[in-house]
Amino acid sequence: MKISEYTAFDALGLAELVRRREVTPSELMDVASAAIEQVNPALNAVIGSLREDAERSLRAGLPEGPFTGVPYLVKDLGILVAGTPTGMGSRLFQGLVSPADDELMTRFRRAGLVSLGKTNTPELGMNVVTEPAAHGPTRNPWRLDRTPGGSSGGAAAAVAARMVPMAHGNDVAGSIRIPSSCCGLFGLKPTRGRIPTGPVEGEVLLGFATDHALTRSVRDSAALLDAIAGPDPGTPYFAPPPARSFLEEARTPPGRLRIAFTDATWSGAAVHDECRQAVRRAAALCEELGHEVVLARPDIDWERVRISFRMLLSYQAHLFDRVCPVLGLAPGRDTVEATTLIMAEAGRRMSAVDLHDVLVARDQISRQVGQFFTQFDALLTPTLTTLPIPPGTLNANDPSVDAEAWLDQIFAFAAFTPLFNVTGSPAMSVPLHVSADGLPVGVQFAGRYADDATLLRLAGQLEQAAPWDRRRPRICAT
Amino acid sequence: MKISEYTAFDALGLAELVRRREVTPSELMDVASAAIEQVNPALNAVIGSLREDAERSLRAGLPEGPFTGVPYLVKDLGILVAGTPTGMGSRLFQGLVSPADDELMTRFRRAGLVSLGKTNTPELGMNVVTEPAAHGPTRNPWRLDRTPGGSSGGAAAAVAARMVPMAHGNDVAGSIRIPSSCCGLFGLKPTRGRIPTGPVEGEVLLGFATDHALTRSVRDSAALLDAIAGPDPGTPYFAPPPARSFLEEARTPPGRLRIAFTDATWSGAAVHDECRQAVRRAAALCEELGHEVVLARPDIDWERVRISFRMLLSYQAHLFDRVCPVLGLAPGRDTVEATTLIMAEAGRRMSAVDLHDVLVARDQISRQVGQFFTQFDALLTPTLTTLPIPPGTLNANDPSVDAEAWLDQIFAFAAFTPLFNVTGSPAMSVPLHVSADGLPVGVQFAGRYADDATLLRLAGQLEQAAPWDRRRPRICAT
Repeated sequence: MKISEYTAFDALGLAELVRRREVTPSELMDVASAAIEQVNPALNAVIGSLREDAERSLRAGLPEGPFTGVPYLVKDLGILVAGTPTGMGSRLFQGLVSPADDELMTRFRRAGLVSLGKTNTPELGMNVVTEPAAHGPTRNPWRLDRTPGGSSGGAAAAVAARMVPMAHGNDVAGSIRIPSSCCGLFGLKPTRGRIPTGPVEGEVLLGFATDHALTRSVRDSAALLDAIAGPDPGTPYFAPPPARSFLEEARTPPGRLRIAFTDATWSGAAVHDECRQAVRRAAALCEELGHEVVLARPDIDWERVRISFRMLLSYQAHLFDRVCPVLGLAPGRDTVEATTLIMAEAGRRMSAVDLHDVLVARDQISRQVGQFFTQFDALLTPTLTTLPIPPGTLNANDPSVDAEAWLDQIFAFAAFTPLFNVTGSPAMSVPLHVSADGLPVGVQFAGRYADDATLLRLAGQLEQAAPWDRRRPRICAT
Repeated sequence: MKISEYTAFDALGLAELVRRREVTPSELMDVASAAIEQVNPALNAVIGSLREDAERSLRAGLPEGPFTGVPYLVKDLGILVAGTPTGMGSRLFQGLVSPADDELMTRFRRAGLVSLGKTNTPELGMNVVTEPAAHGPTRNPWRLDRTPGGSSGGAAAAVAARMVPMAHGNDVAGSIRIPSSCCGLFGLKPTRGRIPTGPVEGEVLLGFATDHALTRSVRDSAALLDAIAGPDPGTPYFAPPPARSFLEEARTPPGRLRIAFTDATWSGAAVHDECRQAVRRAAALCEELGHEVVLARPDIDWERVRISFRMLLSYQAHLFDRVCPVLGLAPGRDTVEATTLIMAEAGRRMSAVDLHDVLVARDQISRQVGQFFTQFDALLTPTLTTLPIPPGTLNANDPSVDAEAWLDQIFAFAAFTPLFNVTGSPAMSVPLHVSADGLPVGVQFAGRYADDATLLRLAGQLEQAAPWDRRRPRICAT
């Protein structure tokens, strides 16, 4: 199979070819590897190979699943692959080899996916761009002097440049949605508790974090969610199981929805005109499609959102002071980025009472947003406040920055996404807009807690009405 | 209706009489009030009246529900009733009048229940006996020189003495199951996230705490769960909805279950022979009923359970240092019990990193217990390590005690219940045993997360095989 044929299909499309025996998993592995070799040097999206593991899987025989034989990439953070290191974008953790797959990797394998490599991430995922000291910056395939976003920026660049049809990502403040917006992809952050985190972890980062994937097509995201969702033993809680398969939902018209929209940030941060235009055009499209569209939004006290994200600081301190000693690792200036150390230091100063403040803020915000969603089915916002920024703009190695100021810098760019990590509700970035100079601009739709189905129905409808997959970035496997 | 007639029925039985117009809600209110007046002076179970509120509800017309007209009591902790104070068993909070019902109270009302009063609780629910300085000790109706247990001890004494057929309680370390065991009642702690906590609260005490009720019959507990379970807007997560009504489950034979049992504590605390006998007899009964019964238990590191309960300390500190100033309250030796102040002081010394340790411990324990429940449907243990202790044994006003030592004292009595608050899994105390000197002794069955149904099926079967409702305590409305 030629690269140009390979890149025409989404993941379900490739799986269908395998099922019809028009291509073998081995051929797909080779063409994907060639695509990676072709474009990765310009992008630095893939920072580690899993080719040996993939070949072993093929020799052993792939499981029958919805994605059997489909090339895939996993992020270098938040997932454990047996026998390979999970570096988490940090020089400190480069040698940390996992003894076994975790539950998420087990489910990716069970779905038939063939993971060929690991994608770049900022250190510990603590940035909204992807330029760790450990691996250097990932570039945006639409414009090399712009970021692909983060923290799943390696995944986004790889999928946009068509190395693979979709790739694993995770999202604690927007890290699936932000790079999806920057690279013209579909990125769904599912409801809290839908994706397994075991067998080691339980609730990740107070429930703010969840895994899933960045895809080109809506149906791929939905079918993957069907394959990996559901509780694993001993989870502290889990999202209610869906009434129907998410793939079926993505193919079902959503009916007439009540959609609220806003293009103003809660923090007061400025919003670029292209991002506001993206929302206005998406709102108009939703109206054309028969939805009721209303200028409205929950009345959020942004200070509470800021407080709730202080858990990132104490989490870093816990990682360094409690976990690292057990692993025999000593974080220092040579191994850890300046802002990471600064965040950990601020986290050390936090009391348990401060962390209870975080929990109270989280739950009060969730109650407010939950009340809002008794009146609306979805909330439309920009995904980001501005177009993809140049690498270096959010400098994680500035030792003079203050921890709170650093969070504010990040949230000036990502002002709309973090709210739905606080609430745990599903949210997606949909690539509906292109800027005057050709850069992709996503819009975010957030939904009711546990109601991923309505978002996927809406996404399927939007994809049909305004298909985005025909445009290709400058750097694209071919 | 005479008191002797009234006390023969469970809550669904009384509701049926109302439905058939054999008694009016007003008559039930009067007979329940008479029953309370008759036995409460000896027991000190009800510490506040809601009679005015109840009369108002009757005048306005009760909603049609499964419990329309049934007299009820709510605990003076964890539930808000419009226009009445929630004292939380503390002198400090006596004047705190709620402006509105919370969601749980709304659902109790919607079920048709008529709440006539508030039941006694230890200060802030932080004990496993019920003897707050604010209201004095509640007595066990089976023997006045013994505790009814706690923290829902007022509720237990009231139901056991048949003032009402069932009463509200809540459970953060055993506070529904412990008093149920001490007073010969059925006490189910439902799965984490099944009972609403809004509109003010979100996750309560890291998800360790849940509300429900203490009942005489299994069917009352099941039908009440049907009436009050389910998410309210903005909850940070919720338990998956049941496949069928819990009432239906309680009437359905459980089939052949795989039941593990143990009578040894994880902490090494001694277990009274009566409690061990209770487990052995319950195990034998389960075998007679056709279940597979195996001596087995999850291999828990008790130290992790202890660590996880340190959140009680930082929670107290947060309450006193953050919440009280907003309410204009100043906790001090005249208004707060000694151990409560000691716990808060220990909580102030905890760092955010310490609280992350709690979260890690919670989730690691949950994973272990979750794995165990892939092999077993239920785990049978004693509910308590000993028979109901005399009031004063667990002295909350000893200023010389250390916070950790205080928790150890509590857990020496309640060594089996706290584990399932850590995991969030359902657990129930079933009154299957009576000691040689006539005191009730419950056994605990814990189940798989979200699988309250299996426990209720088993409970229904046990109730039929070994009915416990015929025996009456020495102090009993008549």
